[in-house]
Amino acid sequence: MIKEKLPDISQNDSPVLGKTHWAIADGYIPGQSNGPIPELESHDTICILNSTKTDAHIRITIFYVDREPSAPYEILVPAQRTKHIRFNNLTDPEVIPKDTDFASIVESDVPIIVQHTRLDSRQAENALFSTIAFSE
Amino acid sequence: MIKEKLPDISQNDSPVLGKTHWAIADGYIPGQSNGPIPELESHDTICILNSTKTDAHIRITIFYVDREPSAPYEILVPAQRTKHIRFNNLTDPEVIPKDTDFASIVESDVPIIVQHTRLDSRQAENALFSTIAFSE
Amino acid sequence: MIKEKLPDISQNDSPVLGKTHWAIADGYIPGQSNGPIPELESHDTICILNSTKTDAHIRITIFYVDREPSAPYEILVPAQRTKHIRFNNLTDPEVIPKDTDFASIVESDVPIIVQHTRLDSRQAENALFSTIAFSE
Amino acid sequence: MIKEKLPDISQNDSPVLGKTHWAIADGYIPGQSNGPIPELESHDTICILNSTKTDAHIRITIFYVDREPSAPYEILVPAQRTKHIRFNNLTDPEVIPKDTDFASIVESDVPIIVQHTRLDSRQAENALFSTIAFSE
Repeated sequence: MIKEKLPDISQNDSPVLGKTHWAIADGYIPGQSNGPIPELESHDTICILNSTKTDAHIRITIFYVDREPSAPYEILVPAQRTKHIRFNNLTDPEVIPKDTDFASIVESDVPIIVQHTRLDSRQAENALFSTIAFSE
Repeated sequence: MIKEKLPDISQNDSPVLGKTHWAIADGYIPGQSNGPIPELESHDTICILNSTKTDAHIRITIFYVDREPSAPYEILVPAQRTKHIRFNNLTDPEVIPKDTDFASIVESDVPIIVQHTRLDSRQAENALFSTIAFSE
Repeated sequence: MIKEKLPDISQNDSPVLGKTHWAIADGYIPGQSNGPIPELESHDTICILNSTKTDAHIRITIFYVDREPSAPYEILVPAQRTKHIRFNNLTDPEVIPKDTDFASIVESDVPIIVQHTRLDSRQAENALFSTIAFSE
Repeated sequence: MIKEKLPDISQNDSPVLGKTHWAIADGYIPGQSNGPIPELESHDTICILNSTKTDAHIRITIFYVDREPSAPYEILVPAQRTKHIRFNNLTDPEVIPKDTDFASIVESDVPIIVQHTRLDSRQAENALFSTIAFSE
């Protein structure tokens, strides 16, 4: 019934949204954790949605305070899939050190949406934040 | 007195704001909770404001890591009303599994505003985040 | 020295930024609190920056789930000042009930910036979120 | 392999993203802390990414509730570097008082990205939020 009232929205296709360039200025992987691993291990996460019908080839560049940027970290997010990636788990070209300030830029060959979430369990109870990243 | 100084803002009508397409990349319903139910039950919430004078017919598509998108979840937000919907409570076409990464796209036939809020009470004290969703 | 390298940024005037229409979809004042009052009392806050040289006359409209919007809540933010207002403290035309879902639209006669912050101290330790509001 | 599929993304240069004017409406440095110093000291942080190949000369203006704005706070973020600056640590032209509402505007001579993060450890367990700042 509601469906019939949405003539201007595609009935059969998933909608396509997003931008190809994204940035996160506050990267940080807390070095300590409390609670069960891996759910409540401290982590800094980049959540990506690829709502298009084409696989997304994604490149992440990591920026530091006092040395050259590190890149490319390459990720594939298949068509119409989401991927939530912990910065903790990126290893190629190199592991991102813990307890270290960084920032990142995310580039994709198709439009994507990027959200940045951190779980900090350095103290007994976890703290959490999330924000849609900056896009252009 | 202040009212007289706002000639360029409508006096009698509520303002109309928003976009018709929104996305949330970080969907996740924590599987555990502490504290009174339902207030402090872990939840992932989509808050919608329809400030227009027309009912909003809304369709949500859920994207997963490793299977096809699930849709349509249909929601009606009446004219000039807000609705805060827990992903936990969406059941048609299917329940969203807990402890599982997902993402979502929200489409509406009138302009709306979408905000994404999570309360995580897996540990003794709750953690909270919120962000305005991505819109186009 | 740095100053001399900023020829394209005004030297003597504060910059003017912002939009005249803002929206917050997730309004909620937790009914319980733990900790010293008023600092750690649960609150839902709207933070406004008026960086212009003109006083901002601001009108807030509150939207509910199941009744007509409530307005106008009128606020003056003087030129080049900030004001952080707890929804808890708005009383005219009426108090906003606690433990109740709402949403809000903020209109101003000069450009402003709006950020939405909640402190939830229903459990022993507080939880916190903040997001830049939606603007057009 | 993925690399070869990204013909439209620069191979050798870091991408350039950002805006030159940013605002944060909710500034506040909690006056109390629990936990190890400096990691878990309460702080309000501005995270800046300069992905360009040119040093960024940045000027911050602090706005208060009841007195004139304070400026300029001058910061240099080198080309292709990030800097995460605690408002707590800004001292010139003056220290920002704790437990006091403020707001800020950030101007740069090259495009940057600004994210605003607060860690509040006034209670035994810390609370955390982050949001991409407002830009124009």
